[in-house]
Amino acid sequence: MSLKLTILGCHSATPRVNAHPTAQFLEIKNHHFLIDCGEGTQVQLRKYGVKFSKIKHIFISHLHGDHFYGLVGLISTFRLLNREAELHIYGPNGLKEIITLQLKLSNSWTQYPLLFHELNATESELVFEDATVEVHTIPLDHRIYTNGFLFKEKLGERKLNAKAIAKFKEIEICDYQNLKNCSDTAYYPEIVPLIKNATCLYHEATFLKDKEALCVTTKHSTAAQAAQIAQLSNVNQLIIGHYSGRYQNKEDFKIEAQAFFENTHLSLEGKVFEINNTLIDY
Amino acid sequence: MSLKLTILGCHSATPRVNAHPTAQFLEIKNHHFLIDCGEGTQVQLRKYGVKFSKIKHIFISHLHGDHFYGLVGLISTFRLLNREAELHIYGPNGLKEIITLQLKLSNSWTQYPLLFHELNATESELVFEDATVEVHTIPLDHRIYTNGFLFKEKLGERKLNAKAIAKFKEIEICDYQNLKNCSDTAYYPEIVPLIKNATCLYHEATFLKDKEALCVTTKHSTAAQAAQIAQLSNVNQLIIGHYSGRYQNKEDFKIEAQAFFENTHLSLEGKVFEINNTLIDY
Repeated sequence: MSLKLTILGCHSATPRVNAHPTAQFLEIKNHHFLIDCGEGTQVQLRKYGVKFSKIKHIFISHLHGDHFYGLVGLISTFRLLNREAELHIYGPNGLKEIITLQLKLSNSWTQYPLLFHELNATESELVFEDATVEVHTIPLDHRIYTNGFLFKEKLGERKLNAKAIAKFKEIEICDYQNLKNCSDTAYYPEIVPLIKNATCLYHEATFLKDKEALCVTTKHSTAAQAAQIAQLSNVNQLIIGHYSGRYQNKEDFKIEAQAFFENTHLSLEGKVFEINNTLIDY
Repeated sequence: MSLKLTILGCHSATPRVNAHPTAQFLEIKNHHFLIDCGEGTQVQLRKYGVKFSKIKHIFISHLHGDHFYGLVGLISTFRLLNREAELHIYGPNGLKEIITLQLKLSNSWTQYPLLFHELNATESELVFEDATVEVHTIPLDHRIYTNGFLFKEKLGERKLNAKAIAKFKEIEICDYQNLKNCSDTAYYPEIVPLIKNATCLYHEATFLKDKEALCVTTKHSTAAQAAQIAQLSNVNQLIIGHYSGRYQNKEDFKIEAQAFFENTHLSLEGKVFEINNTLIDY
């Protein structure tokens, strides 16, 4: 059993011809999660062959445009495709108002149930759970309220008591595959306990060291900082993305990160990662 | 002197890899107008080499997503590019609330003046005027409040009294170049007096005759209906667009239209029209 992560967009700020803002499609135990939804995500989903009807849960990290301006369009397209299944959206307070205002003014209410789960907690919380998968928030340090997300497979054979797991963290390493997705954030070692021993950490790396000062004002991270978080957290593997458009050569991000954390991989559009104890990157 | 119209997107409903929703860039006497702004328009602007800073006026026909979901992203990108110049937006009531709510929640107010001119009149009105250009609305018949727009060059040498022109319509034919842009609308002969003798009419043609019944329920037009409006209005030339994704071959739209109006041209992405008494389509 593994998690499969498809990168739909891995750039920051503004969409360009071959540089799409953040969106990722995660397949985990027959669940199909969309993580963030920048402008143009629905086109990227088509480009990489994702069947729209599979998506039942969308997680929005924060309300900066490069992470959610494509959401209202995707919701509208689901309507035009005569979707009937429920769509659950997890994101910060205010997201429901933004979407429903637009549906109201265009007189285009969805014929399918559109369910918002608005988030405002500053501590990690469980936001989705069924027999096989759990999703927890990871509050981050950004200019506005922002969450990362932890996606965790449950054991197939036996149901574990969550409190018991908390006591024996090492069980988690052996028995679970999980992805910890830390979207936009400043260097924030406070998250280390929340992402400790993750199978895979997706951490933003907007800048290289040359712009470390800019990271302070914009509350983003350098590739080196992302790698230091991966090292401190003892994760198995690191994927970095959310590159600033000012850098032409993505390999520089990898080189900078690998000085701190060897098992670092670059997020690139259309790339698929099979996440298990040996990450396959193809 | 001529008008230059660049087609950025000419499809209806949902964006696809090579089919972008409505957006057009109009150059007229040193003015640079963006007409509609579907999702992905900012990427199309870059693709076709439009300098962002030139755009000072954006006209939104109505609040269906395929005509404005790209607007908030473009406004945000102008902010990231450190724009200082005023940006004027003309569109239906409610557009200001949609945009400002998103800027508020993302804590990303523009540093440049963002000025909304909200429209709700059901009669044609003058919405922009300076020494060389006028823009009037053309109220249309669609499922929600919708305007087309008339873009008119004024005479360079002398200023005519608008009332005098109204009495002698034929002056207009000789002395003006103008584009009448009728975005989404049902077949609506009531607009004929407003678009009479236009140099160029851009009229939507979402369907072919095989879906004429669908035009009634969705309040769109067939290619034949667009051409009949052009014929009734005695315009010089017709451009059609806003094609439904169900049709593979755009030439069928042209064939259907030309049975009623010979001088019909197809809107295609990236195509540039020089609009004068002899339309150049290259």
